[in-house]
Amino acid sequence: MSKVKNLAINYKTAEEFKKFREYGAQELHMIDELEANVIDANIDSPFYGIYQGDDLAARMCLYRREDTDHPIDNDTADYLVIWKLEVLEKYQGRGFGSELIDYAKSFNLPIKAISRFQNSRNFFEKHDFDAHEYDIERDLADESLMWYPN
Amino acid sequence: MSKVKNLAINYKTAEEFKKFREYGAQELHMIDELEANVIDANIDSPFYGIYQGDDLAARMCLYRREDTDHPIDNDTADYLVIWKLEVLEKYQGRGFGSELIDYAKSFNLPIKAISRFQNSRNFFEKHDFDAHEYDIERDLADESLMWYPN
Repeated sequence: MSKVKNLAINYKTAEEFKKFREYGAQELHMIDELEANVIDANIDSPFYGIYQGDDLAARMCLYRREDTDHPIDNDTADYLVIWKLEVLEKYQGRGFGSELIDYAKSFNLPIKAISRFQNSRNFFEKHDFDAHEYDIERDLADESLMWYPN
Repeated sequence: MSKVKNLAINYKTAEEFKKFREYGAQELHMIDELEANVIDANIDSPFYGIYQGDDLAARMCLYRREDTDHPIDNDTADYLVIWKLEVLEKYQGRGFGSELIDYAKSFNLPIKAISRFQNSRNFFEKHDFDAHEYDIERDLADESLMWYPN
C-alpha cells in the first residue's frame, strides 16, 4: 500500500510546509484562504506527501492540466504537472522521492515535471523523464521534463 | 536613448547566454533551431539585453501573453511576462537591471515578473512590483509579482 497521502489543507500542513525549501506564493495563498475561512474542508488539495509519524517527510504538488491551446504534442493536451517535489534532508535516502513519483505515474497520464535545481533534474531523469521540445507559449520560464505512460 | 537592444538569435548570442546563471531549456532549444536552420533571420527574439562593447552585460526574456482563460484579474488578460532578468556580476551596480525594467514598463502593459531567487524578488519590489493573488491554473509553479501602468 502506498504511503502517499493527499494532504489536508489546514494550519498544521501550513506549518509543516515552512520546513521545505520551495516555500512561496502558493503556500501563502493557502494560509490567506485558511484565515479568510474560504476553504471548503472537502476541497481537493494539490499536495501529496509522506508522513513519518506526525512529521511530513516529503511532499509534491501534483496538478492535472488540460490545455488544448498549448498541448505538449498532438496527442498530449491532458497531463499532470509535478512541482515542489522535495524530501526533507533528514528523511533522504529512504526512497520517498521515488514513492511520490510512482504515485504520480499510477494515474497513467503523461507527466510534466518542473525542476528548479540540477539535482532534481537528475532525479527525474533517473525515473525515465526526458527533455522535451521547449515551447515559449506553453513553457515560458519552466525548466521541465516529460514522462509518458507506455 | 535606451541602451536596451532586442537580441539577435545567432551563435554569438547563444555563446554569451552561457555566462548567465539561468541557462536552460529555452537556450538549448534556440541552439537546436540554429543548427536545424529553421530560424528565420527576421524572427522576433524574446530576449532583450544591454551590451558593453562586444559583451552582453545584462539580459531578460520579455514575452507578451494573451490569456483570456486565466487572466490576472478581470481587466488583465493581456500582459507582458519577464523572466531571466539577470546582470552579470562584473556589470552589477550600474543600473542595467533598472534600464531593462524601464524598457519593459515603456510598453504600458501590466507586467508579470517571475523571480526565481530572493534577491530578484527584492529587486522587483523596489521597482514597484507587488505580490498578487496566486492562482493554480494560471501560475502553477511560478513565483511572480505584478506591475500595473498608471
